[in-house]
Amino acid sequence: MDLALNLAEATIGQTSPNPSVGAVVVKNGELLGVGTHLKAGEAHAEVHAIAQAGEKAKGADVYVTLEPCAHYGKTPPCAELLVKSEVKKVYIACLDPNPKVAGKGVEILQNVGIEVEIGIQEQRALRINQHFFHYLEKKRPFITLKAATTLDGKTATATGDSKWITSTEAREDVHKERHKHDAILVGRQTVEKDNPSLTTRLPQGGKSPIRIILDTNLSLTGDHHIFETDSPTWMVCGNQADKAQFTTTYPHIKVIQLPTEKIALTDLMEVLAEEKVQSIYVEGGATIHQAFLRERLFDECHWYIAPKLLGGQDAQSVIGGASPIAMKEAQQLEFIEIQQIGPDLKLIAKPKEES
Amino acid sequence: MDLALNLAEATIGQTSPNPSVGAVVVKNGELLGVGTHLKAGEAHAEVHAIAQAGEKAKGADVYVTLEPCAHYGKTPPCAELLVKSEVKKVYIACLDPNPKVAGKGVEILQNVGIEVEIGIQEQRALRINQHFFHYLEKKRPFITLKAATTLDGKTATATGDSKWITSTEAREDVHKERHKHDAILVGRQTVEKDNPSLTTRLPQGGKSPIRIILDTNLSLTGDHHIFETDSPTWMVCGNQADKAQFTTTYPHIKVIQLPTEKIALTDLMEVLAEEKVQSIYVEGGATIHQAFLRERLFDECHWYIAPKLLGGQDAQSVIGGASPIAMKEAQQLEFIEIQQIGPDLKLIAKPKEES
Repeated sequence: MDLALNLAEATIGQTSPNPSVGAVVVKNGELLGVGTHLKAGEAHAEVHAIAQAGEKAKGADVYVTLEPCAHYGKTPPCAELLVKSEVKKVYIACLDPNPKVAGKGVEILQNVGIEVEIGIQEQRALRINQHFFHYLEKKRPFITLKAATTLDGKTATATGDSKWITSTEAREDVHKERHKHDAILVGRQTVEKDNPSLTTRLPQGGKSPIRIILDTNLSLTGDHHIFETDSPTWMVCGNQADKAQFTTTYPHIKVIQLPTEKIALTDLMEVLAEEKVQSIYVEGGATIHQAFLRERLFDECHWYIAPKLLGGQDAQSVIGGASPIAMKEAQQLEFIEIQQIGPDLKLIAKPKEES
Repeated sequence: MDLALNLAEATIGQTSPNPSVGAVVVKNGELLGVGTHLKAGEAHAEVHAIAQAGEKAKGADVYVTLEPCAHYGKTPPCAELLVKSEVKKVYIACLDPNPKVAGKGVEILQNVGIEVEIGIQEQRALRINQHFFHYLEKKRPFITLKAATTLDGKTATATGDSKWITSTEAREDVHKERHKHDAILVGRQTVEKDNPSLTTRLPQGGKSPIRIILDTNLSLTGDHHIFETDSPTWMVCGNQADKAQFTTTYPHIKVIQLPTEKIALTDLMEVLAEEKVQSIYVEGGATIHQAFLRERLFDECHWYIAPKLLGGQDAQSVIGGASPIAMKEAQQLEFIEIQQIGPDLKLIAKPKEES
């Protein structure tokens, strides 16, 4: 199962809107076939693994990270392929939350007497596809708030200088995270101040997510990198913005105009869910982070902390706007992962469940 | 040596101005004696361990966390005791940086043919007495900046509410750190806002350090806890403060009046060094932290980070004042320890050596 999970992990970010899945076929201690789902519309993990095993799949054990599908989609159901191949036993890390599948894959296998064992390394398997599962269950994208700050919570000096806070290692990790998300989201001010490309730049390449820019009045103009065509850009605006004029100037940019004057994040998430955006990586700045925090609208925080102290009440705080009245109104989190990346720390936290 | 180091660690904070030391006597795999130095003026670790071993110490191996002393102080030299006891071999974790000792203890042992091995678990041994070693070498106290913040670097809301940021577990750890330091330092505003006791309150008791309050004009009055007599309080002021009047009102409080109008931290450190204060635990607030940061005057940071997001540019930042112009002027640190304490993190960092 470890190998199957490794195979699935290697494809995180590239299979959306499908989940990442790995499959391994073994008989008498001999590895007969491996497979992983590479891209939506292409063959599932089990298909690859079974094809590689060929005739030998008969009587073999199959390890698969997600319940084999039971429905006819772009490809025929994998559960039936396993039946046809006469495998002996199927080990499944986690069940599929997709209502079209949900236990039906297991049922097909058990109906013909194939043994099934469920739940091996389930937590790891769930985390691999947490964006996918979250999207299916909550009907909105999984939202990651990302920030890079000094140890004292600052992202820039009072005059706005911010280069660089974190190390090259941490910045490379950010590109890995971009690759894993369907979209990156930033505010107009970040584009104006930093003119970021918001693409995935890894030594080995990587998939660049959709760039979503919140710009209430569509006031961004000029030759910002986000207007380049290397990856799709979606501008989000309120109902007072002149969409027609913007579209004339930038015909290759998609504009999402919301029905209210200000951008309502919950409305935006509904639109993005319809667009099949399963995950959003929110890179700030401070005003955007404050908006998501105020709405309690996020599922994970990725906080990169550089070992430095800037100092200054007037320096730019990572989250802007006005503070709540009482400390007890702060959003409670829990740390779920702590990594050292180069000289920096990466802290992953999620909102604490109400108890 | 592990046992000897454990013995030494158990006394951190209670032996000042002496170092914490542990000693263990072993022969043929049998533990014959253990000892630890408990308090300045009392017997050294080796004396206890050798006394317990008695006649059996002859031909035994001795493990000691710090080089045995070679000078007549309040007690006779331990190196000579080991010679007299005719031990066979002495394992030493680290040498004594005290110029009165510095290799002389080893010399005494080797002169009579006792084998000596130096440097076993040296890093751990050095860390046990880092305050002591630092004080001897730099002639000023070891300075620890301590802060407790939200993940976004905040210590209070815009209206000043700060209770509580961290968990009871983290707050208990703060009391352990107070016990390990000779003095706690805070500013006038912290006394006025929080009225802290600044004592060590551990389930098992603990040593309360000296309370040092920076109050340029000696303007603190009233019934603040720091004026109570449960542990010594030292007020630090500038040359315009009315020391005579203050001393009449609070005769039990020591006043350190500096020769300048404002408090110069480097001058203060000289005075404290003369007073044999080897370590200071700086608990803030934001103005005090900013002053120490501006002077680059600290040796370690203890940052407790609570898993919560407060938000707000106007919320109280952990370090106050004005930010530098450029991010590259931030004080560079390196993380040396990361602990999870209850739900919170404790990050220990030290200023990065110039390379």
